[in-house]
Amino acid sequence: MQKKLGRQTVKFESPTKIIGAFSSVGTKEAQGPLGEYFDKRFSDDKMNQSSFEKAESELLKTTVLGAISKAQLRFDDIDYIFSGDLLNQCISTTFAIKDFGIPFFGIFGACSTMCEGLSLGSMAIDGGFAKNVIAVTSSHFCSAERQFRFPLEYGGARTPTAQWTVTGSGAVILSGKGDGPSVTHITTGKIVDMGIKDANNMGAAMAPAAADVIKTHLLETDRSPSYYDLIVTGDLGKVGMDINKELLKKHSIDIANNYSDCGDMIFDADKQNTKSGGSGCGCCGSVFCGYFMKQLKEKKLNRILLVATGALMSTTSSGQGLTIPGIAHAVAIENTGG
Amino acid sequence: MQKKLGRQTVKFESPTKIIGAFSSVGTKEAQGPLGEYFDKRFSDDKMNQSSFEKAESELLKTTVLGAISKAQLRFDDIDYIFSGDLLNQCISTTFAIKDFGIPFFGIFGACSTMCEGLSLGSMAIDGGFAKNVIAVTSSHFCSAERQFRFPLEYGGARTPTAQWTVTGSGAVILSGKGDGPSVTHITTGKIVDMGIKDANNMGAAMAPAAADVIKTHLLETDRSPSYYDLIVTGDLGKVGMDINKELLKKHSIDIANNYSDCGDMIFDADKQNTKSGGSGCGCCGSVFCGYFMKQLKEKKLNRILLVATGALMSTTSSGQGLTIPGIAHAVAIENTGG
Repeated sequence: MQKKLGRQTVKFESPTKIIGAFSSVGTKEAQGPLGEYFDKRFSDDKMNQSSFEKAESELLKTTVLGAISKAQLRFDDIDYIFSGDLLNQCISTTFAIKDFGIPFFGIFGACSTMCEGLSLGSMAIDGGFAKNVIAVTSSHFCSAERQFRFPLEYGGARTPTAQWTVTGSGAVILSGKGDGPSVTHITTGKIVDMGIKDANNMGAAMAPAAADVIKTHLLETDRSPSYYDLIVTGDLGKVGMDINKELLKKHSIDIANNYSDCGDMIFDADKQNTKSGGSGCGCCGSVFCGYFMKQLKEKKLNRILLVATGALMSTTSSGQGLTIPGIAHAVAIENTGG
Repeated sequence: MQKKLGRQTVKFESPTKIIGAFSSVGTKEAQGPLGEYFDKRFSDDKMNQSSFEKAESELLKTTVLGAISKAQLRFDDIDYIFSGDLLNQCISTTFAIKDFGIPFFGIFGACSTMCEGLSLGSMAIDGGFAKNVIAVTSSHFCSAERQFRFPLEYGGARTPTAQWTVTGSGAVILSGKGDGPSVTHITTGKIVDMGIKDANNMGAAMAPAAADVIKTHLLETDRSPSYYDLIVTGDLGKVGMDINKELLKKHSIDIANNYSDCGDMIFDADKQNTKSGGSGCGCCGSVFCGYFMKQLKEKKLNRILLVATGALMSTTSSGQGLTIPGIAHAVAIENTGG
């Protein structure tokens, strides 16, 4: 059987099952429209830690432990953990998982990390290199805000295109056997740079990469958008969603009827003053693991295309006047039975 | 055939070939003991760019283009590129490769990145997901120094245990067919944290992870150290090498007779005032791709175990008083013929 469909898409021979998933969020996310779906809702955004960075590690750690427990496994049953986050040198990940003793591949895809982990984890299972794998990521509003923008105390005003970094984490356990939705295809993205330089408009920077990978996925799998119950982007927000739809329309691809975005869903933008929507690795991570996994398990949805999107920049690159290249990875998750 | 030997080691069914390799370095590295082996020696550490960060991107870009050219391939022939670096949010990678149009998996393993890329790239080939893959990494003294330590103009004094970040990059092309040394086994490391907090002693922070993965590799492959012509760590430097040897001796593993370290080899510590030795993702990258690949191709060495080592910390984690956890990944590279 041919595993590769075109250059970017892999079709798995025996689809990898998602046998466990767990999501953890902070207070604002718990108060949002999806609040009830998250597995762990912290009542304190510092998670009883002495710094925001340690809080984010605690969030990620809680999420990994929750996912392992849900899948009824032990640390020793896990062959690899794929994890990454937004903090410099991915320290949320390091300090969360350092004592678990699980072979570790660090990944960096900015907010595309959830789908990068799902992709590499599924390859590890399908390739026969692992029985069980964890893919996890996190973000935290307070640690991201002070690293990428301003001290919280500064109280900077936000532009209408700005997004609100989600305090959240999502983890899945992938396995070659067991019950759960299947990862049937992955389409790995290329970097797309349309020259956007406005660090307060990440949706616009990432939308071209999302459109590119969705177009490629549909072409290489020979599927139409309507094959999926829902196409879900990671954190384009309202501004990026519109751009994504418009870019796809230019290629005669209409996703308007079955399209959602985790960043648009997680907050009530008007009531919660989150402008264009949520963002951060933990946005797609917590919404997929919290909300969509439950929809899939309850068969309310049976086929989704999850497209996490990342903005590949740093404060240094923006400070030096460089653009914000985007990347997006698509993962098809389906109830295949069996 | 069993692909997994124990929990951490994969034995590849049909070993992945390294069909092309390229190394690029800065001026100090070119003047060092291995100078003649590097494929591209820049005569200006700014690589004709307007910032050190852009210079590092230029270094990585030159290296990828060199490797692709050596393997006589085109961009379209490459299924995936695995790349990461030390700069915040891996911007050296992003701006180096953004226009190549190659499906991209960003990785972060600090200075273990060369072996992380070799590992994941080999899995992609062996699993049937790719025909050709690039694994690449870089570091630059000037961009690292100002991000992690002090402005260069400050002229900070160095402790005897300090290491000198290598201005260098290394890239390999992995393929399912063709000529070249083979990646026969990978042993993926766990994070090891022995409580070291001294950011001027990275060798001590990383050595326990190196010892752990070497011990595990030998145990799971049922090989003795003497099976290898050479066991090569990434950038432990003189201080870390001694700790590594001592830790292994406690497990009755003696590597004293066939052990080298890229960080120890790349500079003449006395003449070049580099204290404990070289470090950075580009240290293992450039020394493996520049020096060791030529030794393997000329059959001066036929079996090496490459163990790149990473220190998983940031200025924030060190500033908050946290430890420096280490990680190391081992990759067996052998002339298997055929």
